[in-house]
Amino acid sequence: MPLLNENERLEDLDLKQLRIIQNEKTFCFGIDAVLLAWYASGSVKPRSRIADLGTGNGIIPLLLYGRTGASSIDALEIQKEMADLAKRNVELNHLEEKIHIHHCDLRDSKSLFPSSFLDIITCNPPYMPVSRGMKSPSETLAIARHEITCTIDDISDFARMHLKDRGKLFIVHRADRIHDIAASFREKSLEIKRLRFIYPYPGKNANLLLLEAVKKSNPSCIVEPPLYVYNTDGTYSDTINAIYGTETPKSKDFQFG
Amino acid sequence: MPLLNENERLEDLDLKQLRIIQNEKTFCFGIDAVLLAWYASGSVKPRSRIADLGTGNGIIPLLLYGRTGASSIDALEIQKEMADLAKRNVELNHLEEKIHIHHCDLRDSKSLFPSSFLDIITCNPPYMPVSRGMKSPSETLAIARHEITCTIDDISDFARMHLKDRGKLFIVHRADRIHDIAASFREKSLEIKRLRFIYPYPGKNANLLLLEAVKKSNPSCIVEPPLYVYNTDGTYSDTINAIYGTETPKSKDFQFG
Repeated sequence: MPLLNENERLEDLDLKQLRIIQNEKTFCFGIDAVLLAWYASGSVKPRSRIADLGTGNGIIPLLLYGRTGASSIDALEIQKEMADLAKRNVELNHLEEKIHIHHCDLRDSKSLFPSSFLDIITCNPPYMPVSRGMKSPSETLAIARHEITCTIDDISDFARMHLKDRGKLFIVHRADRIHDIAASFREKSLEIKRLRFIYPYPGKNANLLLLEAVKKSNPSCIVEPPLYVYNTDGTYSDTINAIYGTETPKSKDFQFG
Repeated sequence: MPLLNENERLEDLDLKQLRIIQNEKTFCFGIDAVLLAWYASGSVKPRSRIADLGTGNGIIPLLLYGRTGASSIDALEIQKEMADLAKRNVELNHLEEKIHIHHCDLRDSKSLFPSSFLDIITCNPPYMPVSRGMKSPSETLAIARHEITCTIDDISDFARMHLKDRGKLFIVHRADRIHDIAASFREKSLEIKRLRFIYPYPGKNANLLLLEAVKKSNPSCIVEPPLYVYNTDGTYSDTINAIYGTETPKSKDFQFG
């Protein structure tokens, strides 16, 4: 049992004995992180060089490693408190040789990698423009939710610089930001090739999206089947059960955005 | 019974006794036109000034009139043969006072309306970039299918010039062109506000999309529930049956694109 600080709890990820420490007062991962790791994992090869932007407590590197055995994941986190927690999570799972946590600003990371170095970038960014929505009085939560230190343009600038040609960028975001994302990506030579909308229930509007963008690819996008979280009767959909690999998704997993 | 020329047939639209002459050798309307008229009709008010771009045989003005009683629809068609057929269809239904067919090029239509005059524009454009896909040896079919005389930019240029602020542009297009459309529209101050993907069957990728763009609106897009054409068992979906208002959609209606 690792030492847990105040407000922390230990969770089993039900994936290769991986465990994660969550801090209930700062940020707990949600279904969006789980979906993103699932969506990206099909593109990971044994020697893929991967970066995760704004990694929080390190959930996406852990899930990516768990799903694919990826051996080289660099994860960036601007908030010291979260980066420290992510490092503890890497140590907890004895993955110091696979996952490297960097406490740094992705907007100031030129020196972190050579240019055109990465095969894959994942990012579960803050969803809200600074101009919209109530900002959390907690700075940690505000930075995680609002585009204070990480805008869509920051992500596409990073990807343009650090992805190889044909390298892939995976993000999860709010469905209503689709055109903001597409506009920024196209300007930076990132073409959205796969798009999957997440609907809470059949018959409702989409609230999230998953996408794969490819650097210097030709335009043409596959719009994949909708992914429903719940069936109409309130049970989890078969797709969600298959992604989690269990019948009972974790607490907090279904709090969107 | 109106006079039918070679290759022509008369169809009943099952909507307010409306009928349409189709030419099997040039272009017959498909489900895309029916869906577009349905999608746009909710925004039509009694005095809306409406234009339909590339009207073909006039199917969209007829359906819009049938669904809404719209009293002022101008329809543009570049091909003389099709424009003549559209005029005959207007006369056949005694709608000369409601629907005006213009044989003209939408790229050269500055004088057709005052600027910022229209409330609503509909367009079921050619789907294929000139660089992609086999072009039909028939010039009429080639112009209807390939962006020879009507590109996405042509549509957005027209809409920017002729729509009122907050006026609406409705189009149906191939799902894989979504980002081409969004990029062109945003450059011309047209913001996509509603987006609905059409899937042939549950579990398949989308092949078409419907969208509503608004001139000079703020960015933020609702991604509506998927619209399935067929159920998994091959019967038409409830949504499609409701849109057609009958149990048996018309011949040719389900030939996408």
